[in-house]
Amino acid sequence: MFFASDNSGPAHPAILDALTRANEGYAMGYGDDAIMDEVRDRIRTIFEAPEAAVYLVATGTTANALALASLTAPWQTIFCSPVAHIHEDECNAPEFYTGGAKLTLVGDSDRMTPAALRAAIEGEGNRGVHGPQRGPVSITQVTERGHVYTLDDLAALTATARDYGLKTHLDGARFANALVALGCTPAEMTWKRGIDAVSFGGTKNGCIGVEAVIFFDPAPAWEFELRRKRGGHLFSKHRYLSAQMQAYLADDLWLDLARRSNAGCARLASGLRALPGVRIDGTPDANMIYTHMPRAMHQRLVAAGGVYHILSDTLDSGDPDEALPARLVCDWSMPDSEIDRFLAAARG
Amino acid sequence: MFFASDNSGPAHPAILDALTRANEGYAMGYGDDAIMDEVRDRIRTIFEAPEAAVYLVATGTTANALALASLTAPWQTIFCSPVAHIHEDECNAPEFYTGGAKLTLVGDSDRMTPAALRAAIEGEGNRGVHGPQRGPVSITQVTERGHVYTLDDLAALTATARDYGLKTHLDGARFANALVALGCTPAEMTWKRGIDAVSFGGTKNGCIGVEAVIFFDPAPAWEFELRRKRGGHLFSKHRYLSAQMQAYLADDLWLDLARRSNAGCARLASGLRALPGVRIDGTPDANMIYTHMPRAMHQRLVAAGGVYHILSDTLDSGDPDEALPARLVCDWSMPDSEIDRFLAAARG
Amino acid sequence: MFFASDNSGPAHPAILDALTRANEGYAMGYGDDAIMDEVRDRIRTIFEAPEAAVYLVATGTTANALALASLTAPWQTIFCSPVAHIHEDECNAPEFYTGGAKLTLVGDSDRMTPAALRAAIEGEGNRGVHGPQRGPVSITQVTERGHVYTLDDLAALTATARDYGLKTHLDGARFANALVALGCTPAEMTWKRGIDAVSFGGTKNGCIGVEAVIFFDPAPAWEFELRRKRGGHLFSKHRYLSAQMQAYLADDLWLDLARRSNAGCARLASGLRALPGVRIDGTPDANMIYTHMPRAMHQRLVAAGGVYHILSDTLDSGDPDEALPARLVCDWSMPDSEIDRFLAAARG
Amino acid sequence: MFFASDNSGPAHPAILDALTRANEGYAMGYGDDAIMDEVRDRIRTIFEAPEAAVYLVATGTTANALALASLTAPWQTIFCSPVAHIHEDECNAPEFYTGGAKLTLVGDSDRMTPAALRAAIEGEGNRGVHGPQRGPVSITQVTERGHVYTLDDLAALTATARDYGLKTHLDGARFANALVALGCTPAEMTWKRGIDAVSFGGTKNGCIGVEAVIFFDPAPAWEFELRRKRGGHLFSKHRYLSAQMQAYLADDLWLDLARRSNAGCARLASGLRALPGVRIDGTPDANMIYTHMPRAMHQRLVAAGGVYHILSDTLDSGDPDEALPARLVCDWSMPDSEIDRFLAAARG
Repeated sequence: MFFASDNSGPAHPAILDALTRANEGYAMGYGDDAIMDEVRDRIRTIFEAPEAAVYLVATGTTANALALASLTAPWQTIFCSPVAHIHEDECNAPEFYTGGAKLTLVGDSDRMTPAALRAAIEGEGNRGVHGPQRGPVSITQVTERGHVYTLDDLAALTATARDYGLKTHLDGARFANALVALGCTPAEMTWKRGIDAVSFGGTKNGCIGVEAVIFFDPAPAWEFELRRKRGGHLFSKHRYLSAQMQAYLADDLWLDLARRSNAGCARLASGLRALPGVRIDGTPDANMIYTHMPRAMHQRLVAAGGVYHILSDTLDSGDPDEALPARLVCDWSMPDSEIDRFLAAARG
Repeated sequence: MFFASDNSGPAHPAILDALTRANEGYAMGYGDDAIMDEVRDRIRTIFEAPEAAVYLVATGTTANALALASLTAPWQTIFCSPVAHIHEDECNAPEFYTGGAKLTLVGDSDRMTPAALRAAIEGEGNRGVHGPQRGPVSITQVTERGHVYTLDDLAALTATARDYGLKTHLDGARFANALVALGCTPAEMTWKRGIDAVSFGGTKNGCIGVEAVIFFDPAPAWEFELRRKRGGHLFSKHRYLSAQMQAYLADDLWLDLARRSNAGCARLASGLRALPGVRIDGTPDANMIYTHMPRAMHQRLVAAGGVYHILSDTLDSGDPDEALPARLVCDWSMPDSEIDRFLAAARG
Repeated sequence: MFFASDNSGPAHPAILDALTRANEGYAMGYGDDAIMDEVRDRIRTIFEAPEAAVYLVATGTTANALALASLTAPWQTIFCSPVAHIHEDECNAPEFYTGGAKLTLVGDSDRMTPAALRAAIEGEGNRGVHGPQRGPVSITQVTERGHVYTLDDLAALTATARDYGLKTHLDGARFANALVALGCTPAEMTWKRGIDAVSFGGTKNGCIGVEAVIFFDPAPAWEFELRRKRGGHLFSKHRYLSAQMQAYLADDLWLDLARRSNAGCARLASGLRALPGVRIDGTPDANMIYTHMPRAMHQRLVAAGGVYHILSDTLDSGDPDEALPARLVCDWSMPDSEIDRFLAAARG
Repeated sequence: MFFASDNSGPAHPAILDALTRANEGYAMGYGDDAIMDEVRDRIRTIFEAPEAAVYLVATGTTANALALASLTAPWQTIFCSPVAHIHEDECNAPEFYTGGAKLTLVGDSDRMTPAALRAAIEGEGNRGVHGPQRGPVSITQVTERGHVYTLDDLAALTATARDYGLKTHLDGARFANALVALGCTPAEMTWKRGIDAVSFGGTKNGCIGVEAVIFFDPAPAWEFELRRKRGGHLFSKHRYLSAQMQAYLADDLWLDLARRSNAGCARLASGLRALPGVRIDGTPDANMIYTHMPRAMHQRLVAAGGVYHILSDTLDSGDPDEALPARLVCDWSMPDSEIDRFLAAARG
């Protein structure tokens, strides 16, 4: 009954099998392995982007920071949501990798609107040499609150950025979850909607630790390679990154896993919503739920071994009916039986 | 009729005379000149801080960035007002000098309140290693909107910072203007109210280009010296910085100049407020006014040669009675006759 | 017949098995997994250092850069050999992670001597605020030319550093190879000889990608954690790093693997030395040989499928007897049969 | 009798007069003053470079660091002499401003040779993504040991750089001294010999504190302006920088002052060389002498009030005839009478 995060479950067995298969003989290091050639081709095919530059790194923070550093000068500011991972959860990695750029927070929700983005852009870059200059826009899809931007949303945001000549980056730590939610193609969710660079996540969706960075215009490629190396992110035994991504993409495993976690989350939400005192706004778009549940229900769940984020300090004492907020995330590995057991515990 | 800024007028003649006096014979470079010894002693006396570390640099951005860098680790965030000079007007200098720290904006006005500061501090530093860590608080006195914090305001802000073990920096680009407005001593406006480090401005108040950085606890002294040197801010012919500051502090010139600019500003505000359609909220605390004046009045002033910041793009066309916002700043050199001429032009 | 590097062979099967074993159920992320607790204890035991701070990262460049950044201020210089990996092969990672520190090259060989180190230290830090300040000393063991410092060598170098109050870092990318060559304990090769921090390599010796960073004085621990996070080097699914290190250290696997690669290298060197025209200076200390071999011999080896670094551009044309330099490295996986096949090809 | 440095004497009175003249009325700040327009034109004329980008800063370290940062990526290395000011005397300013680039030391003297430069360039940039990439070449004219490169020397160095597609920067802290020594035009000593960017010094040659940075290809102009601002080097009251440079260039003052200091130095060298036990290699090219003089002579000079750098720790004790090295520098202000008094004291 572990719903704390999708980075805490096991990797899919196919990923481990791929490591074992890759563990044969001698392979060139540092990204020159043959599996990487396959991976690059496969990603270009999946994204319908035959010219794209494609790189692998091991963590999502790295993918975001290196991608953004390649698009951002040190005197610029990156536009993002106030709850963006790059702002809240990377210990100033973007500031570090860009050499001191700033982040400008857009609006007051996880979902940036074109109007809020336009206002934020207009608010910067009007002071000549004195203020920060306008830099790229970073969009998180699935957002940090579990929402999925529609394709029209994405197009409107990138059009706004383009009005000012700005590039856009997609933080796709949960790329697959968004994709299956929208039922579109990778190209449709990215460059066909104006996205310039993508952090394409694997770690949260069944891999051990691998993310791709994709530039649809390969101009920053060499610079990216140097940034990756001097950041310490170029693996000598790179084949083990490649093998993870290879297995992740093979036979649409990545889509299957995302469908599983989204479906698990829907089952969980549907079950919870039927319980008295539980409030969930809307359907969860992907595999993450923000909900309010009565204190007594939380207490029962914790006592039964449920693990998830209760966003309150007052679990232990207070009105048993008081609604306390919580975040629940399903990963690919969560069986329906566990979800049902959790719901039973919630029910009491 | 120049009210655009207090960095555009002439330097006081005493400052230039001091340069000429200093221009005798050979002097040790790099801050080891005898005048600097005098200046250090004088500042320690003025601030009643015999142990303070005292340094000179040539620009306000430098004073702020170097002072903050000495108090801030790269993984921390600096708390400041959303209109702070360090946020809006230094082209990411604090981010650069700290090696990639972040700025967290406190509240939504130029004057931080203890409650807003507490909320901002509480909002950071709760995510362990993931989020930015809490860094120092930077307070601007006079604020960028012309307000002066009372001594109680300052004490309450530094007490809030201290509750979390955080240091405070005072951006005193207009230190003297605030001091004469409050009628207190330098010590009362700084360390007696809990301030740890000060950017003590001279440039905007009659100097050519000199600011002191003062640390009441001299622990960061050597680190500051290294930061200043590698930032390119250590002058070989340092005596010309020292001489400016020496003359600025001699015979209370700095206080006289600040009184002049504050008085000029009061005269200007009082005259404007008497005119129909002009709105000024409150008395200007120091030497800066934010006001609204009718479009036609702006047009008359511009036509008559008035120079100041009209904070609107629609000066030329529209309802003549529509109120357009503006900022006016008085420097020490503005004679009453010019102010009166400006008021006459406003009157039409 | 792959002797190009010890980062190109397969991982030991026990490492892969450990990943599979670790791939059960849900585990706290970001270094809070239970396996990491075991690994920390085990490393403290092995190093007889119960207070040591112990962290895992995925690459050697990261281990070095983060360890050095924790010991070096941006205005300092790091003392190292002119062929140090941190100088030649990390694309300015130390400069990046330290925020702009410098590297001062010591002497003209891979093995620093105390005299050369003393001369280098004396050459810096004498210009007050003007020059770079003296920072830590970084020693590579096994050196980049395959040499192993004796315990007395290490003690003499760290004593020299300590004379100036400087810390020492050991780049132990091939730590195990050096240890078995010296036949001493980890404590004897590190803190008992004055070393303050160690990059303890696993990747080149049979792991997939894992290195430990060890600080014998744990003072920099929290700073290191923040540096690791904002560098993007904190793995969410950290258990897969922990599991590698766990298996690496279990049952002295790490020592066995190092003994195998050293023995393979000795067999190779002994076989080569017996051939006419081959020159190897001294016994290889560990698992790396620098040698000169006749051009014709190189040509035969390449034709037979031998892979290794020929340090010359003139393989194809020239006197068949001319000696061309080369580097050969044995990893743990190289069977004697392959070595013998290589020697047979060399013999022609 | 002050021969310690050319940054310790007075500024020329014309420079101070210019400040006074500039101190009239209100002027746009931040480089938009009318005097700067004149200065830019004048420098373009003097350098026969009508398109050049021209900026002013207050210190030589700043000029070098900002100019180099505009030409250098963080993963590159700058080629310079081992005694270059940027290496020895700027406390890692180039590393700081470039965001972590490296310096590669060329040869073992103050004068780089094309052969040594070629060898240094060949030694870098051959390791793909692993090593630092090749960056610009920085040439100091006058060198830190008082030598002046000939025009052919400069052409040969820049041709070598260009062979590898590298840019060249001239550190001209003593630009005027070199120029009058060579008797050529500014264009001949710079872009006509292949130089791309110049730090054009004023501070050491009679100014208070002003240096120009000149890019013959203005492409980096906007980036430079942003770097200057966020470095804290953009003066609000910029007219006082402009005025110094205006007066410095007017009526060839800059050339007169350089001729005076070079002539004073020649007089000093000639007088010293006539004394028994004094050794000076060659004629001093500009205004700096490296010499050996007997210990007893040094003792007499110090006793008489002579101030200069004795490059030995053993002034006080030892053989009176032992030759101890020293550096002597003449600035523009040194009268012949003082030089003769110094020579008399040396003679004893």
